[in-house]
This record gives sequence, structure tokens and C-alpha cells, in this order.
Amino acid sequence: MECGYYDFQVQPREVDLTKRATLIALGDHILHTAGEDADRNGFGIRTLHEHNIAWVLSRFAIEIDRQPDEYEKYRIQTWVAEVSRVMTTRNFILRDMNNREIGRASSQWAIIDMQSRQALDLRSNVQYTDVVVPLEFPMQRPARIGAVHGDRTGEHTVRYSDIDFNQHANSMKYVEWMTDLLPLEKMTSGHLARIDINYIHETRYGDVLTLAVEESDTVARFEVRRPDETVACRAMIQWK
Amino acid sequence: MECGYYDFQVQPREVDLTKRATLIALGDHILHTAGEDADRNGFGIRTLHEHNIAWVLSRFAIEIDRQPDEYEKYRIQTWVAEVSRVMTTRNFILRDMNNREIGRASSQWAIIDMQSRQALDLRSNVQYTDVVVPLEFPMQRPARIGAVHGDRTGEHTVRYSDIDFNQHANSMKYVEWMTDLLPLEKMTSGHLARIDINYIHETRYGDVLTLAVEESDTVARFEVRRPDETVACRAMIQWK
Repeated sequence: MECGYYDFQVQPREVDLTKRATLIALGDHILHTAGEDADRNGFGIRTLHEHNIAWVLSRFAIEIDRQPDEYEKYRIQTWVAEVSRVMTTRNFILRDMNNREIGRASSQWAIIDMQSRQALDLRSNVQYTDVVVPLEFPMQRPARIGAVHGDRTGEHTVRYSDIDFNQHANSMKYVEWMTDLLPLEKMTSGHLARIDINYIHETRYGDVLTLAVEESDTVARFEVRRPDETVACRAMIQWK
Repeated sequence: MECGYYDFQVQPREVDLTKRATLIALGDHILHTAGEDADRNGFGIRTLHEHNIAWVLSRFAIEIDRQPDEYEKYRIQTWVAEVSRVMTTRNFILRDMNNREIGRASSQWAIIDMQSRQALDLRSNVQYTDVVVPLEFPMQRPARIGAVHGDRTGEHTVRYSDIDFNQHANSMKYVEWMTDLLPLEKMTSGHLARIDINYIHETRYGDVLTLAVEESDTVARFEVRRPDETVACRAMIQWK
């Protein structure tokens, strides 16, 4: 029952033209931290796969106070905050080397049986509940995002570079497709405040997806639809 | 006058569905090594920018004996092999933790004046020539690739996620667009042998590019054309 601490340094390929870490790089680091910390606690991907079960990311939110600079070192603190029947919440605090908070994140995960695709009862395994750390955390949990109709739409075919070891599109790739739809100024303003993401259905290699975006000055809402019109993913980005 | 050694560990986001490091991840690591080592020798991007000059990658080749596995640690050795009037050659050897060679790479760079876009005479600065290490290196230098006509073509618009700090598409992004055109089996066969890349003209945010590919069983040749039909980049991938 303790927090894990993981150090990162922002690499040149992780910054955009403002020389600050992109939202996607930060999301990748945070999810990487989740994977490492689960592994350290004995319930990482590798262990789960031996039992034919797998982690599924359901909701994810990141709050950004400041995007770290190229080559800047920063630290992510992570802990399991809560375990309910089918969902566990893992939280994160991002701090710079002066120990100042630069962001935070919250994620909700299920474990599914890879054969039946059914969610497991997480409370039946003390391994998951024993690690809960009851820390105060002021961040609002990841929001549920309603249907997005979309002023502008795009299309994306799931490609080799999008997929991970299980042939599904990688979690942060959805955010890449979404943010590539926005005007460049929106992503490089330095005023990103928060993203909420709902992962609803998986997408696979070759799927031709429809992307929709609804934009106002300070909020953009996105929806990714699968070929059969079911929703794969929704997200909402807010600016300061 | 010595080699630099840089350690990497293959991260989950750097593997494909075969759980081996992708060609793009290896290329990113190799180019990162080039940047770090130049910096360590006092002629990194940061130093050059202060003098309003910049590195430009002209040709790049990677030979792969074995793509390292997820979480595998490996080491890249790098050195400046040669300095001619307008071009310097930097070589690389990739070794696993048993000190076995798993690949090698060679890259050719110019330094240009950012105002005039003219190449500098590299031999006029002892800083560049003093670091040359005359090591034997059995790899053939990056090939010059002739015009590609292309059986199949695609299109790509340069997006936010493609560009680096100077608003040009990132070097390895060209390879991502190219390899995304190939059948999945080609990229996941584990039999990648070599890639040669010629960088001819830059591409910028918003450019609508044409991609062409000519394929046989063991070779694929690619061309990326700019809106004005000039060639931005050519590459050739060979399989064992």
C-alpha cells in the first residue's frame, strides 16, 4: 500500500513546434507508468496474459497546468485509489524537478476474460484491493461524454503504425487522430487545460473510422465511429 | 576522438503486434543518439541554432539482423566516420546485452545556414573534423535511390503530429507513411533486412503529399512527392 514514482525526460520526438511535450507524449508516459506500476505490484499485462485476462482502459482524464519543455525531467506519482466491482481507479500526479505540480490524471480500468470478454469481479482478488492508497485527490474523475454530432468530420483507416500487440488501435492514437483535426493554433497555444476520454469499443487494423468534431473557443468534443456506426471513442478537450 | 555509447530499452509503445521494436522506433533511437552525441561534442542542435545554422539529414540507412523485443535493453555505439566538404557521415552499431550485433546504421548530414539555405564547408571548422574516428565498418553507405513510378499510390496531409519544432515533417514520419502502405504481413514478418532513405526536400504543415510504392517480394521502393510534384523523399526497404 504505497505510491510508485517514475521519472521521465521529455525527448525531442515528444515535443511539438513549441518545444513542449505534446498531450500525446504526456498521455503515453502516464499510461506507461500505469503499466509499470501494475507490473511492480504483480498484476501487469504479462502476468494477466498468463491467466488469459487483460486490462481494458475505460475512461481517462488528464489535467495540465504546464506542458514540460524539451529535455525537462519530471516525475509521475501513481497509486490505485479505488476498487469497485468491475472498475479500478488509478490516479497520477505530475511534478517538475522543483516538486511543483504540473498536472494530474485519473484512469478507470476493468479486467476482462479474453475468451468470454466478460469483466471480472475485482473485489474477489485481494491482490487488487490490498494496494489501494486512500490519498486525497482534488481532480474530478473522468467525465462521461454524451453523443457528438460534429460540425466537421474526417476519416481514418487503422494502420500498421496505429496498432499495438493485440492488433487494436493504441489508446493515445485516438487522441492523435482527433487533435490532428484541430487548427494548429489550438494545439500549440500552451493553454490546454484538460482532456477526458471514453473508450467504448475497440478498433482493429483496416477499420475505416469516421471522426467528428464539435468546436467552440474553449472546448472541443470528438467522436470516433466504427464502420458499423457504433461509437469507438469519445473525448473532450478544454482550454484555459 | 572517441565513440559514444547510448542505452535504450524498448518501450511498449515502440513495438508492433509481434512485440518487437518497429523500424520506426529503431530509427528514432538512432537519430536520437546522433543528436545526443553531437550535443556532447559541442555541436548539437542547441549550439548550432545560436549561430543560425542547422543540421540537415540527407541520407540514412539501417541494417537489421534482429529487431529487439519489448522491454529488451540494447546499446547504440556511434561515431563520426568522415567529414567531406559539405557532408559528414555518422555511423552506428546496435548491440544487445550479450554484446552481439543486432544491427547497424549510417547517416549523412550537411550543415546549412538557416538564412541563405546554403551548405557550410565542414572542413573549415576543426570542431567537426577533430572527432572523426577511423573505425572499420563493413556496412554499405546509404544508397542513392532513383525515381519511383509506383504501382500503388496514397495521399497524406502533413499534420500536427507529423511536425517537429521547425514545422517540418519529422524524419521518421516519412517511413511511417510509407510502411503504412504495405500489407501488414510485410512489416510483421521479422525479416526486415535494410532500409535506405534519401531526404531531398522538406515538407511542411498542411502540404498534401502523394505517396507511391513499387513492390516485389523482397524489395519495396517509395517516393513522397510534394504538391508542386518535386520529390520530398525516396526510400527502399529490403527483406531477407
